[in-house]
Amino acid sequence: MEPVCLVIGAGAGIGGNVGKRFAKGGYHAVLCRRSDKEGLDRLVSDIEAEGGRATGFMLNAVEEDAIEDRVAEIEASIGPIEVVVFNLGAQIGDRALANTSYKQFEMGWRLACFALFRVAQSVFPRMEERGKGTLLVTSATAAVRGNKGQHSHAAAMGGRRMLCQTLNAEFAPKGIHVAHILIDGAVDAPDTLGKMLGEENFQKLREARGLEHDGLLVPSELAETYFHIAHQHRSVWTHELDVRAFSDLAWWNH
Amino acid sequence: MEPVCLVIGAGAGIGGNVGKRFAKGGYHAVLCRRSDKEGLDRLVSDIEAEGGRATGFMLNAVEEDAIEDRVAEIEASIGPIEVVVFNLGAQIGDRALANTSYKQFEMGWRLACFALFRVAQSVFPRMEERGKGTLLVTSATAAVRGNKGQHSHAAAMGGRRMLCQTLNAEFAPKGIHVAHILIDGAVDAPDTLGKMLGEENFQKLREARGLEHDGLLVPSELAETYFHIAHQHRSVWTHELDVRAFSDLAWWNH
Amino acid sequence: MEPVCLVIGAGAGIGGNVGKRFAKGGYHAVLCRRSDKEGLDRLVSDIEAEGGRATGFMLNAVEEDAIEDRVAEIEASIGPIEVVVFNLGAQIGDRALANTSYKQFEMGWRLACFALFRVAQSVFPRMEERGKGTLLVTSATAAVRGNKGQHSHAAAMGGRRMLCQTLNAEFAPKGIHVAHILIDGAVDAPDTLGKMLGEENFQKLREARGLEHDGLLVPSELAETYFHIAHQHRSVWTHELDVRAFSDLAWWNH
Amino acid sequence: MEPVCLVIGAGAGIGGNVGKRFAKGGYHAVLCRRSDKEGLDRLVSDIEAEGGRATGFMLNAVEEDAIEDRVAEIEASIGPIEVVVFNLGAQIGDRALANTSYKQFEMGWRLACFALFRVAQSVFPRMEERGKGTLLVTSATAAVRGNKGQHSHAAAMGGRRMLCQTLNAEFAPKGIHVAHILIDGAVDAPDTLGKMLGEENFQKLREARGLEHDGLLVPSELAETYFHIAHQHRSVWTHELDVRAFSDLAWWNH
Repeated sequence: MEPVCLVIGAGAGIGGNVGKRFAKGGYHAVLCRRSDKEGLDRLVSDIEAEGGRATGFMLNAVEEDAIEDRVAEIEASIGPIEVVVFNLGAQIGDRALANTSYKQFEMGWRLACFALFRVAQSVFPRMEERGKGTLLVTSATAAVRGNKGQHSHAAAMGGRRMLCQTLNAEFAPKGIHVAHILIDGAVDAPDTLGKMLGEENFQKLREARGLEHDGLLVPSELAETYFHIAHQHRSVWTHELDVRAFSDLAWWNH
Repeated sequence: MEPVCLVIGAGAGIGGNVGKRFAKGGYHAVLCRRSDKEGLDRLVSDIEAEGGRATGFMLNAVEEDAIEDRVAEIEASIGPIEVVVFNLGAQIGDRALANTSYKQFEMGWRLACFALFRVAQSVFPRMEERGKGTLLVTSATAAVRGNKGQHSHAAAMGGRRMLCQTLNAEFAPKGIHVAHILIDGAVDAPDTLGKMLGEENFQKLREARGLEHDGLLVPSELAETYFHIAHQHRSVWTHELDVRAFSDLAWWNH
Repeated sequence: MEPVCLVIGAGAGIGGNVGKRFAKGGYHAVLCRRSDKEGLDRLVSDIEAEGGRATGFMLNAVEEDAIEDRVAEIEASIGPIEVVVFNLGAQIGDRALANTSYKQFEMGWRLACFALFRVAQSVFPRMEERGKGTLLVTSATAAVRGNKGQHSHAAAMGGRRMLCQTLNAEFAPKGIHVAHILIDGAVDAPDTLGKMLGEENFQKLREARGLEHDGLLVPSELAETYFHIAHQHRSVWTHELDVRAFSDLAWWNH
Repeated sequence: MEPVCLVIGAGAGIGGNVGKRFAKGGYHAVLCRRSDKEGLDRLVSDIEAEGGRATGFMLNAVEEDAIEDRVAEIEASIGPIEVVVFNLGAQIGDRALANTSYKQFEMGWRLACFALFRVAQSVFPRMEERGKGTLLVTSATAAVRGNKGQHSHAAAMGGRRMLCQTLNAEFAPKGIHVAHILIDGAVDAPDTLGKMLGEENFQKLREARGLEHDGLLVPSELAETYFHIAHQHRSVWTHELDVRAFSDLAWWNH
């Protein structure tokens, strides 16, 4: 039984790269995502090719019992979940109130807020029993300010930020480290930004601001910070930090 | 047809007193609450006894179409909704994660966050057409920090705070004033604090800190601030303010 | 002896208009400013013409003993200072670090932060003895986020915001109400914005965004909110609120 | 000429340990402090004993030209300053307004805020020319909330936090990484906490909460996070993070 790093939302951007980093660090990376089985398999074989351990599962986080059952099975058959990387987003682009349906608003909450609550309900009792564990939550600027058109996204992320604080307040003294990582900028990620923009525009953006310009967050570099936070000594835990490219304005600066 | 001030969550505390204040200021107060028909009738007759106009409705805000239908009927038969006071809370007391059910977590969101989204969906298109309107949201400290045991409450209120910001960002330029009023302390309110503590303890608290001590927020006094905010000139709108008793520590001070 | 509202920084914008509002509300407005004796006299005679009481003093707030002596004299010869409106700014426009001198940085602090500390030292013991008093501090967005080029201004205003919190923490329970009013937008004020832009550009801006557009904060309207905050019942005091024109983006929204 | 890590405020707690960590990482640690020459020499020889490079200087940061001259000499005779760790505090314990003198208030600002401005003025032009550099600022909870008795400290730290944001806004795009590290808890540091409490009480606290309890922040562990932040890839820079012991309440939780 190896220590497991469970990544929920393991695409080719932050999730996948954080999984790789933890695999390199000795964890069995368990990668879950909703779609693109092929991409998932590629991640797993990439990790194995570098001598790491990884397992991939297709997971629809809004389905009843999907998270709960997956956690139970991992703990039973792979190993104790020592780290969870919660990496589900609910960005649906800017939509006026009139174009944001009840269903979309609810789906945002189910994916970005309620799913995290379910993960905590499933994993934390196990971590508590073992006296240790880590939950790293990938967050976005929408968790701290609500911009025009972000009704669904901001409401979900703002709720999730407060949930991270309540989880931290209850579980940090029990040895479970909860960190809320505010990603304040565009990530060089084909599965999210790439799909939102379309292949051509994504490549244009990469050429203009990414690549050697380092103006898009590079997921493999970001993974180093995730790994560091997860390994802070318990006398010096970080609960919240922001991350952005050097050339980007911070969200609070116009 | 008179200008309407719609209060959602009109108990004997903030909601009822804000309704009274707006009735005194010339609005038809439409008071909605989930339970205690008798208390609701009393509020209405109190207002009428002082020469104001009021109508009461029983309303279960989590029921499908309940908000939407009520809004449509008010606009059709009473008058244009110029002010909405959204006063629903979702405080269920401190509960450890293990004692917070999925159902409770979802109910918190339905009452405190999704219901506000539905109100905005129902009322804002009408306000937008008229070029003006006001939404006053009673909020709590849980909207800005997540304390131990507040998983459901803080997640709901934190999401709602961000929702207020997204609504403000889209609708302020269209003449709709959204204000998020952070109530940072115990309110001298029999229907909420009174029920949570029980009659006897509530009276003890009033004698120790409330009444002439002014250490519990007096709803009728708070109503003056709601009324003021709703009548700020549009060149000087307030989006967020906090309120607490002079003798209370602010939430950020230990 | 009449109750005094002391305005420190009483130009033709917020300071002067708040002074007028308090005079109308029965206070003796004591107006202090550093320059433009003529403008000061005009304010005083405007107030007197409307039947109010006012006295004007030239005051250089960075001079040793200037604040301390003025406060003592007012208390001795005019009346008890019940309200202080601290309205000194330290905006010097955007300047790169290389163009911000030590002297400017220190002057920002002396005007916007240290002067407030001196005011509190001078007035609060008197208010404490009387068991009541109010300090209204005009603040700016620079108190909550530091933008490019705002080294001196933001450092001064950020320090001042924390000072308001420490003053509130110590003195609210003693009956002294401290409010920090975040002005988040351009004010229709000839003495500050007008001078910064020059007469011609200021008039252009007024025509484009101010006047009937209500896109610049109208000081006489803002004064209503200052007056309201100063008269909140002590069970429902506000410590911080923001204010901006309906058509402006809030500072947190890009 | 070796890359220099300049530590301003290098006692036996955070400053000294961060210096050691950077020395281990290949930097020439230049350690500056105001008093205790012996302690300073010990730090230097500890580092040299482990094969690192270090130089110590006595420095009174409020003295005119002290910072400016020291920076110039280091750059001339030791090497380019690649990292500055600004670790000066201005905590003088809780003091009522009446017991906080003008001199103390000013001294707080000179040490904790103005000295940082002077450091930036001295070092940033050099870093800008080289296209890279890092400024790590040790901060405290007083930078984000003003508690009772903290007039001098909170005003200084709040101003400094905004200054960090203005520095970051101007210089991050030029390759200079500014990080504001919020230390939210007591540090196991003999030179600061130890002196404040006295030897005996400090040892009691260590036995009760520190040592194997890990309830006091361990500076050598914290140094790992400083080192990590200084070496983040420029596409994923952190500007602000908090740090506390797992068993401590976060400042926002009562």
